[in-house]
Amino acid sequence: MSVKVKLNRNPIQVYSDKFMKPVYFTPGPSELFYTVPDHLKKGLREHIFSINHRSSRFREIVAETKSNLTELFQLPDGYRMAFVSSASEVWERIVLNLVEENAGFIVNGYFSERFANIAEQWGRNTERYDVNHGTCADIDKIQFSDGVEVIGITHNETSTGATHPLDEIYKLRDKYPDSLIAVDIVSSAPVYDIDFDKIDTAYFSVQKGFGLPAGLGVWIYNQRCLDKTLEMEKRGVMTGSYHKLSRLTEQIDHDQTASTPNMMGIYLLGKVAGDMLEKGIDMIRRESRYKAALTYEAFEKNPHMDTFVKEQNYRSQTTMVASLEKSKEWIAQLEGKGIIVGNGYGLYKELQIRIANFPTHSKEQFERLSDELLKLD
Amino acid sequence: MSVKVKLNRNPIQVYSDKFMKPVYFTPGPSELFYTVPDHLKKGLREHIFSINHRSSRFREIVAETKSNLTELFQLPDGYRMAFVSSASEVWERIVLNLVEENAGFIVNGYFSERFANIAEQWGRNTERYDVNHGTCADIDKIQFSDGVEVIGITHNETSTGATHPLDEIYKLRDKYPDSLIAVDIVSSAPVYDIDFDKIDTAYFSVQKGFGLPAGLGVWIYNQRCLDKTLEMEKRGVMTGSYHKLSRLTEQIDHDQTASTPNMMGIYLLGKVAGDMLEKGIDMIRRESRYKAALTYEAFEKNPHMDTFVKEQNYRSQTTMVASLEKSKEWIAQLEGKGIIVGNGYGLYKELQIRIANFPTHSKEQFERLSDELLKLD
Repeated sequence: MSVKVKLNRNPIQVYSDKFMKPVYFTPGPSELFYTVPDHLKKGLREHIFSINHRSSRFREIVAETKSNLTELFQLPDGYRMAFVSSASEVWERIVLNLVEENAGFIVNGYFSERFANIAEQWGRNTERYDVNHGTCADIDKIQFSDGVEVIGITHNETSTGATHPLDEIYKLRDKYPDSLIAVDIVSSAPVYDIDFDKIDTAYFSVQKGFGLPAGLGVWIYNQRCLDKTLEMEKRGVMTGSYHKLSRLTEQIDHDQTASTPNMMGIYLLGKVAGDMLEKGIDMIRRESRYKAALTYEAFEKNPHMDTFVKEQNYRSQTTMVASLEKSKEWIAQLEGKGIIVGNGYGLYKELQIRIANFPTHSKEQFERLSDELLKLD
Repeated sequence: MSVKVKLNRNPIQVYSDKFMKPVYFTPGPSELFYTVPDHLKKGLREHIFSINHRSSRFREIVAETKSNLTELFQLPDGYRMAFVSSASEVWERIVLNLVEENAGFIVNGYFSERFANIAEQWGRNTERYDVNHGTCADIDKIQFSDGVEVIGITHNETSTGATHPLDEIYKLRDKYPDSLIAVDIVSSAPVYDIDFDKIDTAYFSVQKGFGLPAGLGVWIYNQRCLDKTLEMEKRGVMTGSYHKLSRLTEQIDHDQTASTPNMMGIYLLGKVAGDMLEKGIDMIRRESRYKAALTYEAFEKNPHMDTFVKEQNYRSQTTMVASLEKSKEWIAQLEGKGIIVGNGYGLYKELQIRIANFPTHSKEQFERLSDELLKLD
């Protein structure tokens, strides 16, 4: 992404650190979406968290969440969603339900690698296309075998801050028309405008872009996925038990879940998606671009830090990662000012900072963050 | 249980239905534990739901929850607990991690049956010992084959209100010393005083006796379980991926979880377990006996209803079930008075009511409930 967004800043900023609440810029769990506390309190007053998960009242909540997410994501007809416990669970369920033998994985960080590992642990033939951390794959160069049933790609690698351009992801469908294209949108949803018609399944967990307490995963999938799992089941392939895709589908088609779910999470997700619709997803996306541009500008202006992702086209709007000289010390220094940023992931733990830019974060919060980043030396 | 508990009631009861908040006596999700709203609000104020799940602060929360539950359950040395998403997940994980080929299941209701079904779906050889709904198994009469690796039994069948006496459950260990004894304590924990030394693994979900929002399951297991799964893994048996028992163990031994968990649930569970310890688990148990006795007395005194479980020794203290003449009408009538009870389960949906008696429910609430049950005609 380009940093040439017009930076129309308030020239005078007065901060009172002493009375300032901390702001979590960590890449998930992160700052709660700003309406969450009120929805939680309203839910308590209305006894939402005591109602039966088979009651008509809860089915209405599930229906509202489905409807708001469908609108927010502009899901095409035939795309469904299931509520499970985490994105990790979705990895396992995709392997069990959609991969009988062969899968291909594009690996450019720790999270994309984990999906491949789960497929291996379940004994699937796994082909990996590895590229360096902090970069993305050139889809034209990938050579998966014919017959890979699923191709897994991570839209935004939360561990490195590298984002596959959507047009690259869409190429997979043309190149591998018989494979199901599975896209990890854990830390990119709902900020990017994804054309779901060009992918088959996607999944996220709610503690990132939606700003909810952790403990809920959403699995979006199309009819091709469902046909595939039903065909596998017909031939007696083991696809799982209480959360197999066919059972999840039967239940969600009746606004129900296959086991007692994180009902509070489903309730809050529907409410927050509704709030985002009301604010306007276009405005959320515009603001995201502005906040990201501010941050990358700070990374470039401060001589002691360096954007980890070199290619501008691969730079994440939702997880900005910088390598810096004194990561641990500076993270503590920012924390003292109520600015909580993430450390690097894995090998980069003490070498980098990661900054989440989610819809809950305001432009003003990012202006302050940017000022503080510039002061670090 | 006997109904000869001394019923020392307040003789004068004045109710103002109009201003009375509804009380959920549903068998889970149920009334929230009475301290939950305050813990939630405190958690929000302290940003607990934004912190990183790998941070030392969250590890302290996990440690507190483990410690409080260990004390509440009086867990012997060598027993661990893992935090997963539901009791349904534990069923699947037990099958994958502890059963290579053969398992035996004592089936006396819908929930005990579901565990057996999950083992079958995963292709295990499944032996069932079925007894009628509303009764329990006589362990002396069970004939499982030698070599059943796990025996599943449900302490309290939430679908019928039948509770296996603990001394019967303990007989399994003597009769099948080589099998792992897996006990479903979903709706009986922490009300019954279980001797964990006499079982190998047990599990519950938090929306029952602990009065929490749904979306968290707790899996307690001993060293024999861990040895078994490690031995299976050594021989290359597939035990799962991100939530396999060996990985859950590695993580929980460091007060960590194997994936981003329902952190709010873990936090609230630790707090509520602490509140129960402060109140005193003995007092909670005494009150439970009193509240159950009141309810069974009402079932017996009202000529239009009948306790479903005939044998007193099998009657649940935590889920009291009555067959009655006009179930649907009476459930609505009670609801009009702010008393929310559960309908029957499965085939009994329109024939029975189910009343949960969990630690959050007060004696006064049960006195009122009992009065209202007596008025139904």
